[in-house]
Amino acid sequence: MKHTITFLPDNITTTVDKGENLLNAAAQAGVYIHANCGGDGVCGKCKVLINKGEVRSEKANLKQEDWDKGYRPACQSTVESDLEVTIPEMTTKSGRTLKRRPRTTRTVSAKTLDSLIGSWEIKPPVRKLYLELDPPSMEDNIADMDRVLCGIKQAFPDHEGEPSYDHPELIKYLPAVLREADWKVTLLLLRRNQGGFRIIDVEAGDTTAKLYGLALDIGTTTCSGLLIDLNNGEILAESSGYNDQISCGEDVISRIVYAKRPGGQKALQEKVVGTINTIIKDICQELVISPDNIAYMMAAGNTIMSHLLLGLDPKYLREAPYVPAISRFPLTKAADLGIHAHPSMRLFLYPCIASYVGGDIVAGVHACQMAKSDKVSLFIDIGTNGEIVVGNKDWMVCAACSAGPAFEGGGIRYGMRASSGAIENFQIHPETFDPMIVTIDHIKPSGICGSGLIAIVAELLESGVIDQQGKFRHNLDTPRVRQERDGWEYVLVWAKDSLIGEDIVITEVDLDNLMRAKGAMYAGYQTLLESVGLGFADLDQVIMAGNFGAYIDLERAICIGLLPDMDRENFYYIGNASMLGCQISLSDVNRFQERLTVRQLMTNMELSENPEFMQHYMAALFLPHTDMSLFPTVGKMLAERG
Amino acid sequence: MKHTITFLPDNITTTVDKGENLLNAAAQAGVYIHANCGGDGVCGKCKVLINKGEVRSEKANLKQEDWDKGYRPACQSTVESDLEVTIPEMTTKSGRTLKRRPRTTRTVSAKTLDSLIGSWEIKPPVRKLYLELDPPSMEDNIADMDRVLCGIKQAFPDHEGEPSYDHPELIKYLPAVLREADWKVTLLLLRRNQGGFRIIDVEAGDTTAKLYGLALDIGTTTCSGLLIDLNNGEILAESSGYNDQISCGEDVISRIVYAKRPGGQKALQEKVVGTINTIIKDICQELVISPDNIAYMMAAGNTIMSHLLLGLDPKYLREAPYVPAISRFPLTKAADLGIHAHPSMRLFLYPCIASYVGGDIVAGVHACQMAKSDKVSLFIDIGTNGEIVVGNKDWMVCAACSAGPAFEGGGIRYGMRASSGAIENFQIHPETFDPMIVTIDHIKPSGICGSGLIAIVAELLESGVIDQQGKFRHNLDTPRVRQERDGWEYVLVWAKDSLIGEDIVITEVDLDNLMRAKGAMYAGYQTLLESVGLGFADLDQVIMAGNFGAYIDLERAICIGLLPDMDRENFYYIGNASMLGCQISLSDVNRFQERLTVRQLMTNMELSENPEFMQHYMAALFLPHTDMSLFPTVGKMLAERG
Repeated sequence: MKHTITFLPDNITTTVDKGENLLNAAAQAGVYIHANCGGDGVCGKCKVLINKGEVRSEKANLKQEDWDKGYRPACQSTVESDLEVTIPEMTTKSGRTLKRRPRTTRTVSAKTLDSLIGSWEIKPPVRKLYLELDPPSMEDNIADMDRVLCGIKQAFPDHEGEPSYDHPELIKYLPAVLREADWKVTLLLLRRNQGGFRIIDVEAGDTTAKLYGLALDIGTTTCSGLLIDLNNGEILAESSGYNDQISCGEDVISRIVYAKRPGGQKALQEKVVGTINTIIKDICQELVISPDNIAYMMAAGNTIMSHLLLGLDPKYLREAPYVPAISRFPLTKAADLGIHAHPSMRLFLYPCIASYVGGDIVAGVHACQMAKSDKVSLFIDIGTNGEIVVGNKDWMVCAACSAGPAFEGGGIRYGMRASSGAIENFQIHPETFDPMIVTIDHIKPSGICGSGLIAIVAELLESGVIDQQGKFRHNLDTPRVRQERDGWEYVLVWAKDSLIGEDIVITEVDLDNLMRAKGAMYAGYQTLLESVGLGFADLDQVIMAGNFGAYIDLERAICIGLLPDMDRENFYYIGNASMLGCQISLSDVNRFQERLTVRQLMTNMELSENPEFMQHYMAALFLPHTDMSLFPTVGKMLAERG
Repeated sequence: MKHTITFLPDNITTTVDKGENLLNAAAQAGVYIHANCGGDGVCGKCKVLINKGEVRSEKANLKQEDWDKGYRPACQSTVESDLEVTIPEMTTKSGRTLKRRPRTTRTVSAKTLDSLIGSWEIKPPVRKLYLELDPPSMEDNIADMDRVLCGIKQAFPDHEGEPSYDHPELIKYLPAVLREADWKVTLLLLRRNQGGFRIIDVEAGDTTAKLYGLALDIGTTTCSGLLIDLNNGEILAESSGYNDQISCGEDVISRIVYAKRPGGQKALQEKVVGTINTIIKDICQELVISPDNIAYMMAAGNTIMSHLLLGLDPKYLREAPYVPAISRFPLTKAADLGIHAHPSMRLFLYPCIASYVGGDIVAGVHACQMAKSDKVSLFIDIGTNGEIVVGNKDWMVCAACSAGPAFEGGGIRYGMRASSGAIENFQIHPETFDPMIVTIDHIKPSGICGSGLIAIVAELLESGVIDQQGKFRHNLDTPRVRQERDGWEYVLVWAKDSLIGEDIVITEVDLDNLMRAKGAMYAGYQTLLESVGLGFADLDQVIMAGNFGAYIDLERAICIGLLPDMDRENFYYIGNASMLGCQISLSDVNRFQERLTVRQLMTNMELSENPEFMQHYMAALFLPHTDMSLFPTVGKMLAERG
């Protein structure tokens, strides 16, 4: 249920879900509220007057007299009806009302558009077939398997290609199952690329109702699984957890280094297999099914994760010229890797393109159907590495950028992952330069996550606290901008309001790191486009994958030069595209087969020693860019602010 | 080198190889020599006079005066030149010369005809390809496997189908091999049915000269291996030995029974794998190669041996309606079974037809190209079971006969396998009824092997010692025909001349068993022919497989009714057809692929409860048959003898 909120005195109206936090609602609408403590209620400064409508609030540190007058702490209030809310004006010590700044734009999120992903059929690569066979007799004593094959051929008289089987275990138990089940059995069949079916399993009786597939996203940090009912495409259960390999290193490089230790590679394989087994166990316990009931698995991971899962040595992935052992992974039986699964169960891994453009990216590109569209798309996945794909149905180029981990909190003094206490939204009062801090879960701030970082830098730039080179102005009348031993910095949160008991700041070093990260991404887009003779004007849409895209404020990301300055309508957010690709491939055999076409269309470019890339990169180390003609709307906004 | 021998006084001329034993030469020419001791030289009775030419002789028990006169013991003499030899006439006590009997026909062996087998190309299902690849660079850093796949496609630009790979181990060592070998590698490729190649292995440097295949005949008693150089088709080494499963039972039925014990099936699998490993070890040591150098294996065995090798429960093979688990065996990696071989090495097993018509028979039928001929052939493999196939390129019916083990020495009181001391050839003096005994290796007799048994029964019948019902005549003037506690019998060897120190006899019970065995075979031919509306007149040729066929005397086998009475020119002997099929399949991919066509053409018939078969069987319990019109030449011969 949606409610409308009107914020006075600026008369800004926004629509939010019932139950939304009022501070969040204001932040997203671009309304500044003096909230210093992240939403914990301790600072008591974010009081707003509820003129009309109903909120549900905790009193927190609000004074009783304010409460009685109808004030409520915004950070401790949730929206229960349409509202009219007055934000108290801040005054100077001399009593002058400090002008709050209505933002020119409110938070703009990219669209999650189903039309991009398209619909998919429920026609999975596996299917079940219930057969009632004639028992053998002296006149008809063909081999058990031949009887089964005949049954399949009779069931699919028009089907091309001979049915086949290749699993040595299957033929061992087939005779017993057939006889115990009185020749009434259900076959699990895999549709083969060249037509016809391959028999994967045989079960007693009619088990056609039980047909499950597992989609697996094997991330460097987190692994997730979705169990899909392949009879109707429904998601029945999901589970996720940290990749156990984390104990061997946070990022892919440290994992590759770990793999060089004696037994290291094997340990890494066992850890990710253990993680997958935990996911399977969780899901199976939740649904009260056996792992044997999972008919097949579709997984995606980056190239390093894929290599480690299959027990392949990742060392050449890290050494120039960065060569994977393999890009199209062979047919794999999950049980052979140690995964708790039926011995004949197949694990399909999305193919990879290059050492740093992996199956997760192929799955994402596959999910959003770039490879079937006339439109020229820019596909971005920002993490420790940024992966970029540009192309359409006729061609695709891709690259990985060593953007650095700034957007995941790395290289930022108070950077952190997007978890409880991370500053995720931010505004600056244009006159006091005081911040409006919104943290995840509305607790005291403990650091800055990626979306918070973008908001902070954009706000610092817009409000003139920093210049376009990312340097602080030294002449501002605020104690928050100060010079410490390591250089200039801005105090986001004073120690008293922070969870960690110290000032949380953003430094010029942090700003440098951020500029390098976003500069690498932007230079990547440019280099790929130019490699095919195109520019940003030729780009029809931008598709953002990964968690990061979900929380990003487009305006601010464009403002700092992370995203190209183009019509905001053409930005799409696709979420966990890798998992989505797995889910689609599990459900629809035609889409399943397309995954190889996607891979074949994609050509990798190495940016690390590419001179064009280096040139673009140097030019991008500015906010948003040294070439302001690339960022017309940002230039206009900064000029207006100026 | 061939030499001509003229035997006097009957003026019978024969041609033999230099070095042939003179007693053998006489036996095969149908010349009777009074040789009682099997060829050991102890009885001293087989002396012959060398009129012209040269023999190499041991004096043995020959008297000095005879030696000086030019007599030589036939059994101790080998042919060194063209000869003229006089056989001394035997005389009665009264001095009358006993007429020796010149046989109407000499020993006739079936032809081993290459045209039947046809020629085969040296184009094995596996091949090697030496590639010198460009090392990767930053501009060209595709995955190692993709580089290899491109190399294959460039080497075979006209080849249809994408090259593929499916072995998880291969991709693990591929990157290291490529780099260690400086990107100069040899690929081992398997031609796929659907076109294109599958990569099986990669080796450093140019190893194209080393391409070996192993043909394996997995018999219930004996396993044999041939190592073939797949670059030229030459046999480089061979090895054979008893199937270690023998300790679990002599025949297939006892093996199936053994498999029911706890752990029995696994033990049987391990034993046959151990036997194969010994063969591989022997061959590899002989040639100083590694088992890893064997590129692939083609094996054939009967259905029970095939099931046990693959670890399949054989129990339903023995229970009506006698159903195999599988007839077309799946792709198998030899190492998965425990065979000492490269982990990606394929073991192909000839498909089977039914529980008692196995891959050995399919291999034999495949080798002799019945399935490509217009001629209607009768294919016979006689062992403990007799397997029979009738057909041509358009149709084939097959069946197994429980002939019993008479032809392998079973059920015959002094029966034995065809090994040293076994009576393998035999004649009877028509007046004295004394035998001419020829044993394997010319040592004192210890028993009767299959070919000896046929010779003995045929001779007993021809000489009138037994009648057509297989009963001894009681009125003959010889101590050799006598009645003992168990019935009537003929003394083949007196205790003094036998290796075992007792009389070696053939009894009426033995004759009954032989008649049942040969009757079942003949009834089998008839039943199969009639099942497709044909009779013996429609038969163009008879093809005998197995060891048995090599030593069989056609005339005598027809005489007792084991083989149909047709033009002797149309009998072929193909030897170890099962091994030959493996060898051909190893060498020629087109023939290799035909093996599945052969299997599909063959339809099994169960004879055990078939009323037509029972009727034919009863009629065949006679020498040669109750319906003498089926055996015109035998009838004529017996009448002449009468």
